Amino acid sequence: MERMVYFFGAGITEGSEEMKNQLGGKGCNLAGMAKLGLPVPPGFTITTDTCIAFYTAGSKWPEGLKGQVQDNLKKLEEATGKKLGSKENPLLVSVRSGARASMPGMMDTILNLGLTNDTVKAMVKLTSNPRFAYDSYRRFIEMYADVVMGVDRQNFEHAMDELKHKKGVKLDTDLDAADMEALTGEYKAIYKKHLGEDFPEDPWTQLEGAVNAVFRSWNNQRAITYRKLNAIPDEWGTAVNVQSMVFGNTGEESGTGVAFTRNPSTGENKFYGEYLMNAQGEDVVAGIRTPHPIADLERDMPDVYTQLVGIYKKLENHYRDMQDIEFTIENRKLYMLQTRSGKRTGAAAVRIAVEMVKEGLIDEKTAVLRVAPSALDQLLHPMIDPKAKVDAVAKGLPASPGAAVGQVVFNAEDAVEWQEKGEKVILVRTETSPEDISGMHAAQGILTSRGGMTSHAAVVARGMGKCCVAGCGDVIVEEKKKVFHVNGHVVKEGDWITINGSTGELILGQVKLVSPELSGYFGELMAMADKFRALKVRTNADTPKDAAQARAFGAEGIGLTRTEHMFFAEDRIKAVREMILADNVEDRKAALAKVQPFQKADFVGIFEAMKGLPVTVRLLDPPLHEFLPQLDMDKQIEEIASELGVPKGKIVDRIQSLHELNPMLGFRGCRIGIVYPEIFDMQITAIFEAACELKKKGVEVIPEVMFPLVGTSAEMKMLKDSAVRIADAIIAKYGVELEYMMGTMIEIPRAAVIADVIAKDAEFFSFGTNDLTQMGFGYSRDDAGKFLPVYVNKKVLKADPFQTIDVEGIGKLVDMGVKLGRKTRHDLKCGVCGEHGGDPDSIEFFHGVGLNYVSCSPFRVPIARLAAAQANIKNPR
Amino acid sequence: MERMVYFFGAGITEGSEEMKNQLGGKGCNLAGMAKLGLPVPPGFTITTDTCIAFYTAGSKWPEGLKGQVQDNLKKLEEATGKKLGSKENPLLVSVRSGARASMPGMMDTILNLGLTNDTVKAMVKLTSNPRFAYDSYRRFIEMYADVVMGVDRQNFEHAMDELKHKKGVKLDTDLDAADMEALTGEYKAIYKKHLGEDFPEDPWTQLEGAVNAVFRSWNNQRAITYRKLNAIPDEWGTAVNVQSMVFGNTGEESGTGVAFTRNPSTGENKFYGEYLMNAQGEDVVAGIRTPHPIADLERDMPDVYTQLVGIYKKLENHYRDMQDIEFTIENRKLYMLQTRSGKRTGAAAVRIAVEMVKEGLIDEKTAVLRVAPSALDQLLHPMIDPKAKVDAVAKGLPASPGAAVGQVVFNAEDAVEWQEKGEKVILVRTETSPEDISGMHAAQGILTSRGGMTSHAAVVARGMGKCCVAGCGDVIVEEKKKVFHVNGHVVKEGDWITINGSTGELILGQVKLVSPELSGYFGELMAMADKFRALKVRTNADTPKDAAQARAFGAEGIGLTRTEHMFFAEDRIKAVREMILADNVEDRKAALAKVQPFQKADFVGIFEAMKGLPVTVRLLDPPLHEFLPQLDMDKQIEEIASELGVPKGKIVDRIQSLHELNPMLGFRGCRIGIVYPEIFDMQITAIFEAACELKKKGVEVIPEVMFPLVGTSAEMKMLKDSAVRIADAIIAKYGVELEYMMGTMIEIPRAAVIADVIAKDAEFFSFGTNDLTQMGFGYSRDDAGKFLPVYVNKKVLKADPFQTIDVEGIGKLVDMGVKLGRKTRHDLKCGVCGEHGGDPDSIEFFHGVGLNYVSCSPFRVPIARLAAAQANIKNPR
Repeated sequence: MERMVYFFGAGITEGSEEMKNQLGGKGCNLAGMAKLGLPVPPGFTITTDTCIAFYTAGSKWPEGLKGQVQDNLKKLEEATGKKLGSKENPLLVSVRSGARASMPGMMDTILNLGLTNDTVKAMVKLTSNPRFAYDSYRRFIEMYADVVMGVDRQNFEHAMDELKHKKGVKLDTDLDAADMEALTGEYKAIYKKHLGEDFPEDPWTQLEGAVNAVFRSWNNQRAITYRKLNAIPDEWGTAVNVQSMVFGNTGEESGTGVAFTRNPSTGENKFYGEYLMNAQGEDVVAGIRTPHPIADLERDMPDVYTQLVGIYKKLENHYRDMQDIEFTIENRKLYMLQTRSGKRTGAAAVRIAVEMVKEGLIDEKTAVLRVAPSALDQLLHPMIDPKAKVDAVAKGLPASPGAAVGQVVFNAEDAVEWQEKGEKVILVRTETSPEDISGMHAAQGILTSRGGMTSHAAVVARGMGKCCVAGCGDVIVEEKKKVFHVNGHVVKEGDWITINGSTGELILGQVKLVSPELSGYFGELMAMADKFRALKVRTNADTPKDAAQARAFGAEGIGLTRTEHMFFAEDRIKAVREMILADNVEDRKAALAKVQPFQKADFVGIFEAMKGLPVTVRLLDPPLHEFLPQLDMDKQIEEIASELGVPKGKIVDRIQSLHELNPMLGFRGCRIGIVYPEIFDMQITAIFEAACELKKKGVEVIPEVMFPLVGTSAEMKMLKDSAVRIADAIIAKYGVELEYMMGTMIEIPRAAVIADVIAKDAEFFSFGTNDLTQMGFGYSRDDAGKFLPVYVNKKVLKADPFQTIDVEGIGKLVDMGVKLGRKTRHDLKCGVCGEHGGDPDSIEFFHGVGLNYVSCSPFRVPIARLAAAQANIKNPR
Repeated sequence: MERMVYFFGAGITEGSEEMKNQLGGKGCNLAGMAKLGLPVPPGFTITTDTCIAFYTAGSKWPEGLKGQVQDNLKKLEEATGKKLGSKENPLLVSVRSGARASMPGMMDTILNLGLTNDTVKAMVKLTSNPRFAYDSYRRFIEMYADVVMGVDRQNFEHAMDELKHKKGVKLDTDLDAADMEALTGEYKAIYKKHLGEDFPEDPWTQLEGAVNAVFRSWNNQRAITYRKLNAIPDEWGTAVNVQSMVFGNTGEESGTGVAFTRNPSTGENKFYGEYLMNAQGEDVVAGIRTPHPIADLERDMPDVYTQLVGIYKKLENHYRDMQDIEFTIENRKLYMLQTRSGKRTGAAAVRIAVEMVKEGLIDEKTAVLRVAPSALDQLLHPMIDPKAKVDAVAKGLPASPGAAVGQVVFNAEDAVEWQEKGEKVILVRTETSPEDISGMHAAQGILTSRGGMTSHAAVVARGMGKCCVAGCGDVIVEEKKKVFHVNGHVVKEGDWITINGSTGELILGQVKLVSPELSGYFGELMAMADKFRALKVRTNADTPKDAAQARAFGAEGIGLTRTEHMFFAEDRIKAVREMILADNVEDRKAALAKVQPFQKADFVGIFEAMKGLPVTVRLLDPPLHEFLPQLDMDKQIEEIASELGVPKGKIVDRIQSLHELNPMLGFRGCRIGIVYPEIFDMQITAIFEAACELKKKGVEVIPEVMFPLVGTSAEMKMLKDSAVRIADAIIAKYGVELEYMMGTMIEIPRAAVIADVIAKDAEFFSFGTNDLTQMGFGYSRDDAGKFLPVYVNKKVLKADPFQTIDVEGIGKLVDMGVKLGRKTRHDLKCGVCGEHGGDPDSIEFFHGVGLNYVSCSPFRVPIARLAAAQANIKNPR
């Protein structure tokens, strides 16, 4: 017969803390504490497999379970000296769920089981506290009716309210023992009314019902939803813990508390928590009475406090991690109810990990593994002062973390103008477009009413490390009137607002922000992480400012400089438009000649900021129509026409001829460079003029030229041959030695599939996993919002493939690309520069397929460093 | 020393007809004829490798060439008894190019080489024909000056024109011997004036110059362009043939002619050709004098005719193919100048192949290989009467073959209405959209002013086997005014036009058409082909009519039934729009319930037409917005609003919410089926209701349900499970036995890459190579026109990947899909249903990767059958 029940406590613990899969988190925790010799109220755990067996048997107890439960109950009665249903010394138990993964509040719990009309009297006698006994009894009836039998709690609360009303009191605590006794009677009547049967006076029936209820709660709606959201398999099941009750509410010699072995907010190594005398756990949480700081317990009950400190130190030493503990004091006797790894802020996680290394509790690898890379995000941006009381008027998507305060402006020009006057502004738009970049730079943060987590505003803001709330649907922007409406409020240009990009909240007025503290602990942890990394971490940066920021965060080079903004900026867009409107190659070259000095200056700035480190420059990628207004932007078209001195019709014609049904699959990337070689030639000239000029001055520059959207070997060869010719001529002209590389994005499925041929000419690959995901899946990132949420919800996809790389499919293409490429060129440098380069799960995958580096936005560089270290610790190269 | 020269003729031929790579087409042909003992004027061939060596040496003769040419010249002088430069019996030669592949007219030729002031006098004496001698001389000077020295021919023609003007005559033939002699003097003066040196009187200098000129002509612009267009490698080089001249223009005992061993137009086994007495080859071609039919030669020179007949039969017996021959008679002596496989019409190719099998000349495999599959296209459609004189007013793209005559209409409704009144119409539109389908069906042909070979109009028309001229840019359509303008003409509704979809021509008025004759030869060839095929051939058909047509053409099932039109048709579009506008699943189901009976009836029709053969039905594929008008179609939106009784704003909202930036990568295909399962449920119900109803009546039905755009295994499983549940319930309800399959398109790169997982649930794969090409390359078919032509021109791509599958990349994905799929399910049925399924080159590839079938439009079924047979003959499974 399979073993379905394990005893714990009272010196005869049968399970252990290694048995999490069978005993669940709570059960193995109790077993662990008991084995450590801690004062755990004894009890037993029914295994998770039994839960699955329960379902397999058609929601019935599997054969043998009843016998095993009865045996363990007997052991429990012996250990406690109490007996279920006894009129002298009744055993009361709690029945609690406990799955392998923590699912807080998702499943059911029953307390005080064993109370009946008989046993309650025994409890009165034993505790001399009739109010406590009847209060427990009426709570048990309500809980049982609700959890086991499905009667709405409101029926009971209604009866309680009526009683309070009748007595003219407000709080439960104002009711006395007689009231409670009367309520038990009423509660039983309500029970019978709803269920047509009496409340069970047989404790065994109660126990069976409670165990069933816990089993069933594994498949209640909120548990199912929680599992879906947290990727917990349905097949795991929950264990059931039956544990003898202890009471913190039997009088002033009793109490209950929760504590952390270190400060979960700052990480400081100081016992931290709170407790309440004469209270049950739920009273501490409910917040009706104000609990005392844990330190006060030393004064109130010094012996118990000393015991507790000994226990917490033992626990931390044993688990080698900060613990979150629950305890109860019953008549001056301390019981440990729970211990588990404590949740903590990012800052605390970092400090605890670093200090535990110093204390010799853990080694550096463990410390590095202890901090979730994503937790660092909080540390790197300004935050809303945790002490500030804020009222959000609306909530959008937390599109780019951090918080920002500023005066509202409604377009990029105003943002720039106000900022130049020294104002702090928030740019508010329906959605942003590439033309808004300068305004986004100038603003403290960005708020949009439309667009998702991967909208233009979101992607660009994350790249800039700038706070952004996107898709805030309650905000209705009237850009022309310079005003927005939000849930009845009208916000005008110049009004102050605060946005929280970590939560998506919009707050009217100015809220106090606190700056990130990149304390010594952060630096120490990063230094440890860097010892274990195999992947290099580069950054995506388009400006000297971003490059410097990323370098400060530890970037080891630039993996992606987009050159688009070098075309968009105010001082050159006119020439760019002339170029697009040119009718022949001469006119195009003439217009490009005007742009070239600007681009050269841009590259000088970036190369200088990254001196000594490689800089990957991606040549022009977006379709040309992005540099012209849209067809319905009549006013802008007229402006451009008069500025360039061409007929309006010509601009309209060009816009029409450049229009595309599927721009994602259109005339962009290296296709532009093949059709109009003069555009790429200009860029190559600017790059190498800049590099050679600096080199001549003694600045170390390592340019890596990257061609976007290469899909065929001929594209790569043609573009490379031409670029090398130009580069070498410039290098010769300057008479310098300059190392450089020519490589390509691998972002088209065909490129991944024929990477061996492309590698003949490409000296490095940078996987553009954004586009590779779009084309590999056939999902337009701009449109997939129509079905992706449903896909994730229906489990067609495990996760949004634009956030975490799809290992099975797109990952296979990446793997194929790396392997094929290195077949041709065994030392081929491979990296990734899509958004996935900053996603910890994706980084683990990239480590696994043997990339040389990941590249991500500056603010994600530390996250990537940590994730890369963890990947290599888990799966060393 | 490498051998660079091969002698031919006079019984000492050194090369052979197997040496095409070295001797070029012409050289190996001459060697071949000489070896057969035919009267070939002797000469020698300088090899193609020598041409490459010439370039490698920096446009100089490679070492040893001079000696070998001199040796062979000596042999030639001995064989002919003539001597280069001899004042008694001078040898005159032609110097001609001849590459491995035929490049007609692309490279240079020099005739009459060896004429000088001395030798011309000898020729006068020998021929007693001073006019002939001096005419030959002045032609040579002109040709040499032009071809070898680069002097513009116009200079010489100008002198000739002046002389004619002076003498008051019109034709060259009106000039006498003295005139010709005078011209030679003038020509030499022109030569000296332009080149600053005398015309070379040394025949060896002439010969060296001529050989160099032929070598150089390999790299003239038109040759380079021709090679690019015909995929001939630059590295092949050309051979040079130096051959003793024979003259058909020495008098009335001489002549020249061209002939085919069978009728190249009909294939009839009858000697066919024409000749002219006292003429050179160019005179036959020039058309100034009317040549005589070859049969007349029997009367004029019976001995020569008999010899010629003997020769052509010998040639046909030897080459076992219809030959195109050139001959010259010099003073009653017959010389053979050329023989080669004769070009022929599709009809002739079929007849010749079939008859040659009967004659025992070739075996069936050879016959099947003889006919280019694409040549069948001409046979299957109505054609413009070859005898009709037509004047095209404009030319567009030959988007779908065949010709059509009809009255012009400008929209689909009119097309349907006129057709119902019994009129024949041509639908003329700027471009077509899915809403035009009914009109395209009703029309004889379609003319559009925009769009390429793969535009909507082109693709749909080819699918229907309907003639289409697309992208006829000179046509300016004013759809509202019901009029179009074309190069100064105005064509109104109801005017007659004729379009030729095989050439792209637009002709005003009615031209006589001839019907295709699917004669016995065609059927016999197809029967032979079917013996050798490994691939099955299915058809893409959406209607019973198309299905029947394809069956008549030999289709072995339907590989793709698109169900889109079952939503578009007039009688159901209203309910479809209700469905799209529905706000909840109940309303959607109610609307779908109205569509279901129509779809069921559609399936009944198709299943009946294909009884006994499998029918693959693809569930709804296009995005829902295609069923609504576009946002700017205000009038249509209003109509729909009033028809459905909903506010206009609601329709506008829905159009906006369905709008996509990249619809190709958007919410379509099985994504619709996952988000709105009720739509696919309705289709599955209609399919199986139809199938079971027929089955009950004893009609054999084999439905194969195909889910479009599957990219993940979860999509496949979810859709299949649901479909099987519905199907099995219906089958049980009808109490029939029905075999069916559930499979998927493989058209998303990710699907190809994880085909092993998808094959767990998919029972068959149908490769959708259109979309696989779009997503694999990242090319939107609608937009790629901006760069694809440049890509083909610059050799980035070998061919348009939408016409012939890209074997290297997309082909690799197909291969991967097949192999992975069969790893999971070893007998997985694999087919292709993209446009490539009807392309012979692509079919060869599909045969190679082991597909079970290809599916193509009905009119391409015979082409596919033939191509499949050829593939298996060349590379048997």
